[in-house]
Order: sequence, then C-alpha cells, then structure tokens
Amino acid sequence: MDGKSNLIHQNRTGHSSNPQHLFKHISKVSRADREQLNNNKAFTIWLTGLSASGKSTIANEVEAWMFSGQIHTYVLDGDNTRSGINKDLSFSDVDRAENIRRVAEICKLFNDAGVIAIAALISPFAKDRLMARNIIGNDDFIELFIDCSLHECINRDPKGLYKLALEGQINNFTGINSPYEPPQAPDLHLHTDFNSVDECVHLVKNYLINKMKFAENI
Amino acid sequence: MDGKSNLIHQNRTGHSSNPQHLFKHISKVSRADREQLNNNKAFTIWLTGLSASGKSTIANEVEAWMFSGQIHTYVLDGDNTRSGINKDLSFSDVDRAENIRRVAEICKLFNDAGVIAIAALISPFAKDRLMARNIIGNDDFIELFIDCSLHECINRDPKGLYKLALEGQINNFTGINSPYEPPQAPDLHLHTDFNSVDECVHLVKNYLINKMKFAENI
Repeated sequence: MDGKSNLIHQNRTGHSSNPQHLFKHISKVSRADREQLNNNKAFTIWLTGLSASGKSTIANEVEAWMFSGQIHTYVLDGDNTRSGINKDLSFSDVDRAENIRRVAEICKLFNDAGVIAIAALISPFAKDRLMARNIIGNDDFIELFIDCSLHECINRDPKGLYKLALEGQINNFTGINSPYEPPQAPDLHLHTDFNSVDECVHLVKNYLINKMKFAENI
Repeated sequence: MDGKSNLIHQNRTGHSSNPQHLFKHISKVSRADREQLNNNKAFTIWLTGLSASGKSTIANEVEAWMFSGQIHTYVLDGDNTRSGINKDLSFSDVDRAENIRRVAEICKLFNDAGVIAIAALISPFAKDRLMARNIIGNDDFIELFIDCSLHECINRDPKGLYKLALEGQINNFTGINSPYEPPQAPDLHLHTDFNSVDECVHLVKNYLINKMKFAENI
C-alpha cells in the first residue's frame, strides 16, 4: 500500500479500481453446475460483418433453432446494447473498442451463467475482436464472419443508413468513412451475397454439431 | 435528419448513439418463452449496504438455495464486476453512478434471458438505486437493505479496507469519507448486527415465498 491509491481511485481512464481493494467472491454454484442444470455447454458465438450483412437475422435464426432444442441462449445485438448499457458510447474508434469490451464482458458473464451468448456486432477492427476473444477465452469464442460485399449491403440498406453515410450525414460509418478489417481466420465464414439465410443457418448448425458436439436432432 | 448527427456521433458523454440510427431487433424467443423453459419467473434482487455488512455472503446463500431448487440465478457482485466490465471506473460519485447503471442494465439483460439476477453492490446513493429500479423496471426490482452498523462493519473489516480508509489511505470509502444513504422504504430490511446469515436467508426465503410465489419446498 502506498500513496498511489488516491490517484488510482480518482483516475477516470484506465484501471481505476485498485485491484488490491477488490476481493473476488467465489460462488457456491459453479459454471459446471449451471451448465449441468441447463443441459448445455456455454460458449460465445461472435458475428462480425458490415451493417446489413445479415448478422442479426442469422443470430436470431440460430437462437430460435437452439431454443427449440431447449438450449439456453441469449442474443446481444449491437443496436440493442447501444440503446442500453452502451448508450453513452459514440462510433469513434476508442468508443467502438469500449463497446466491444463491454459486450465481451457480458458474454463472459452469460457463459459463466451457463448460457450461450450470441453477439452480433459490426466489430470492424481485428484488434477489438482479439480483445473480445481474450476476455471471453479462446476455447469459448467462435468467430463467425458474415461476409457480404459493400455493394450488396448498400443495395439492401434496410435502415437507410448507407444512404445517409454516402450523403455525408453520418461520420464513422463502417465501409463508407470508417474501415472494416475482414477476419483473416474466422472459425466460420458465411457469404450472404450468395447464400440464403437458411443456408447460412444450416452451415452454423453443421459447425456446432461437428465442433461443439451439438445433437443433430435439436 | 439534420446536421446535428455528426455532433451526436462525436460526443463522448451523454447519449452519443443517435437513436434514429438504432433499430431494435426483436428476438423470435421472448422473455416469457425463456421463463417457461427455465421454469421460473425472472426478476432482480438488489442488495445494498455498507462494505462488510454481509451482502455477498447473503447473495451467495440465497443463490445456493435457489439453485438447489433448479431456479436459474446469477450473482453480480460489486467486487467481481469492478474487476471486469467496470474496471475502468473509480469510486467518484459520477463513476459510482455509472457502475450501478451498467450493473442494472446487465440485470435487465439477465432478466430478459429468464434468469434471476442478484446484485450485491454498496450502492450508497438513493438516486442511483432509483435509477437501477427504473432501468430494471419497478415490478422486477426487489430492494434488500443489508443493514449493519458502521461500528460493527469496522470491527469485522474482513478485507482490511476500513483500516486503510481510517488511516486516510483510501478516498471515497463509504461510511468513512463518503456517505451512505439508507433506503427509506426497502422491500426487505435485514439487520446483520443481530441476525445470523441463516436467519437473514430465512427472511429472504419467506419474502420470496410470500411475495414472489416461490414454492416452499425448493
């Protein structure tokens, strides 16, 4: 203990809570206990891709399939979390990283609760996706690249946001005036330009059945 | 749409995501569906009280009891969340409010996932606890006041933090150099000066059985 503690407690950025003052409380109920009650292993499926690439649609269909098999899941969608826990964050690079950090921490909590987290966020930067993988844990992190050409996303534009971004009315819009760094080695790579939603969900199912030992009949 | 959007996107404080650019995604699986799968209603139990008053201990015992009855729960402990999602926050008044806002938003997500959230945070300010109630929803929010005299908490001091605070080595320590505002009308008021942990857990059980229609035999 030294005089630095006051500084640590007053510092708004960085690690402000002095770790020496925090004591981890161990629950009497373990993650394994919760997974056993839920009758499913917990992990995180992280969908990354451009706006309008199909992330939320695929996330919801995958969840509906899992739920029909009594699997415990929860979707954390970028738009929804930005209306709640992340409503204080902008789309600057720093705030995008914080957006992803918080959602990754929430995925980790859900996994610890025995629930499969499905995160659907643009998450355009490789370093931020790596941060999410590190927070959640490599063994629990499945990266799904929802790949769709910018041309097709602009054509779809279901929210009218590409139009606004192209007109210069939105700053930091991924693909228009902010970059998207495609994953170099995603766990699964889906192409929504030429595969239907049903085909994509089928590929996710196959992946989970083969890699995560999901039963085929759920 | 007007020229303000750029400003909104660049603003780090306040509501930075332009709500007009966010589109709520409705899940195919509802909260009611999840509660039915889990065979329990979801709500939040919010424990407030001084450091060393017994919040985490009681939270863990209540969870262990619920889990033994196959109820789906998750404890969000102040120390644990400050090591994860809230590790960027200090103990200033502003950051205490943000700490509580984020935990409340996470409780809301867990409730939406059909899981009972048990939050154990000092949460010293009435206005922040009211914020948590408003975020989570009045019907889903049970405030438990874990009442213990400051004298007794200083005697217990299991983490040695009161000693450091009294020596002036920690700023903003609740009860020593930062105030605690006792709840005026908590849903349940427990006195850990003179009630044992078992007695307190028994009172929580009775409350949940009577008010939340929990089965007596879980």
